[in-house]
Amino acid sequence: MTAVPPLPSLALVEGVRAGKVAAIARLISRVEANSDEVEEALAEIHRHTGKAHIVGITGVPGSGKSTLIAQLCRAVRETGRKVGVVAIDPTSPFSGGAILGDRIRMSDLNADPDVFIRSMATRGALGGLSRATVPAVDVLDAAGYEVVIIETVGVGQDEVDVVRAAHTTVVVSAPGLGDDIQAIKAGVLEIADIHVVSKCDRPDANRTVTELKSMLGLGLKLEQGGGWRIPVIPTSSVSGEGIDELLSAIDGHLQSMKESGELAERLLAMAEMRLLKSAEGMLRDRFEAERKGKVRSIAERIIRFELSPRAGARLLLDEIQGEINGQGNEPA
Amino acid sequence: MTAVPPLPSLALVEGVRAGKVAAIARLISRVEANSDEVEEALAEIHRHTGKAHIVGITGVPGSGKSTLIAQLCRAVRETGRKVGVVAIDPTSPFSGGAILGDRIRMSDLNADPDVFIRSMATRGALGGLSRATVPAVDVLDAAGYEVVIIETVGVGQDEVDVVRAAHTTVVVSAPGLGDDIQAIKAGVLEIADIHVVSKCDRPDANRTVTELKSMLGLGLKLEQGGGWRIPVIPTSSVSGEGIDELLSAIDGHLQSMKESGELAERLLAMAEMRLLKSAEGMLRDRFEAERKGKVRSIAERIIRFELSPRAGARLLLDEIQGEINGQGNEPA
Repeated sequence: MTAVPPLPSLALVEGVRAGKVAAIARLISRVEANSDEVEEALAEIHRHTGKAHIVGITGVPGSGKSTLIAQLCRAVRETGRKVGVVAIDPTSPFSGGAILGDRIRMSDLNADPDVFIRSMATRGALGGLSRATVPAVDVLDAAGYEVVIIETVGVGQDEVDVVRAAHTTVVVSAPGLGDDIQAIKAGVLEIADIHVVSKCDRPDANRTVTELKSMLGLGLKLEQGGGWRIPVIPTSSVSGEGIDELLSAIDGHLQSMKESGELAERLLAMAEMRLLKSAEGMLRDRFEAERKGKVRSIAERIIRFELSPRAGARLLLDEIQGEINGQGNEPA
Repeated sequence: MTAVPPLPSLALVEGVRAGKVAAIARLISRVEANSDEVEEALAEIHRHTGKAHIVGITGVPGSGKSTLIAQLCRAVRETGRKVGVVAIDPTSPFSGGAILGDRIRMSDLNADPDVFIRSMATRGALGGLSRATVPAVDVLDAAGYEVVIIETVGVGQDEVDVVRAAHTTVVVSAPGLGDDIQAIKAGVLEIADIHVVSKCDRPDANRTVTELKSMLGLGLKLEQGGGWRIPVIPTSSVSGEGIDELLSAIDGHLQSMKESGELAERLLAMAEMRLLKSAEGMLRDRFEAERKGKVRSIAERIIRFELSPRAGARLLLDEIQGEINGQGNEPA
């Protein structure tokens, strides 16, 4: 008996393009493992992307966005389209955090082969950006999922960056969350193409809708380039109110960008964000690889006051840069 | 009349070292403005650091950490030491977010010349890492502040990174915050040298203390290298309970690291974190400077599928690296 060598990642691409769930899941796992071997496959996958509508959905924990996403998935399916979800919220039931007891509500979705839900491992135990997120979205795009949702928790810069990887960004606010919590979100509000106020069956939801509309009127732009008017949509997971309206707004936003020519600008911004994140990721990889080597020796010189921290950083960039490029020249 | 040229930043260093508040405030402002001109001054400042005890204090919004810090400042002052605070929590009253109405409680501190409180502008409207934070701590260190507190909101990776810039990290938990919110903190708990449960005058505080202790017992290490036992300290801003105990624990942690030899390892880890953050900052600066130039042209090639995103990132790193180094070689 000889051991069967593992299938190279490149060989999974065909299965992904045929929409085979097992191939999709395996390739995403390899992306998460961050092996060099997967890079060629991802470059091939990337050539087959550009068809999916990528929708970022963000909101603080407790805003009910996971339940909203489950209902949105059903609404997308009713239009005959396939839908994928990449969840990077550590408190999301999609991500295995069964804190809210929502997992059970997702189970009927899991049975539908045209719904693919994947939770991403996050950096450390926190909800930080997973560098596998955008490549995973590429895989789902190449696999023929027409709508791909990225779920993030809207509290940090990393999460905002991820949502910038989307064509359309939905920010979910909930009534009754403390002012402290809502305040963190101030920056997140600015990135919304569509606002949702969840739990609108609650009596205090109207206040949240009003507050949000007045914030939009005061500080935030109500219209974007191309004439898209940012809507505020109340939804209820109890009555199902607002879900169809939300899907119409999501579809309408993409259509509006296409018609106005804004889409070209958005695609460039998405590619730029991705470039920055990839470059930072490469830097971090080299940094980790050199932690015991160059990084340590430069850090020691800083502690001995032989180098300022900035001079040290410049030296480090210089030294590890050669290796990033050396590595890049290797493949034929 | 000829205009008086602005004082070069390097000329402020003397005033900083003499502990002059105006010079300190001006130099920190220039660091925040991120001018190239300040770099030489910061390198000079860095040579005079290494005396302050840097304490990172983090916790979710609403955990009462600003009030705790105000009381801790008073306790430090009672021991005759000078204390500085660098706040990068956008919801903190120190940062100008008067949401909690705590600002008034800070006012007596503001009148004390041996307490220096500075809130940092954050990247965007969010609480993300301010790259000026660690240099600002350097300035306060060189100015003779014996204890320098960094206040962050403990929700994202950036904030965790900042706290890793400290000798001693305090994580503040509060009773009664929802499970959703506490859950985000799971990753933050791991970085604590000292735990505080605030608002222990509340009846549900005991539960929080018990839960935290059981989490520490189950998953988290109770002891660190060098034999430091991570304490859980209940505090109350109403009665003042626990504040002196907290200061003793903070002092004790540094002493323990000195005695066990752990401090050398911690200093290296701090310098390494700083190296990575500086290198990332330089990359981001070049990226922003090239946004209309190289970044855009590479992004356009990615959109046309001529380059994979990773190949594009490698190309970009290669092209902008030369300039980072070129810039570095300029000064004599």
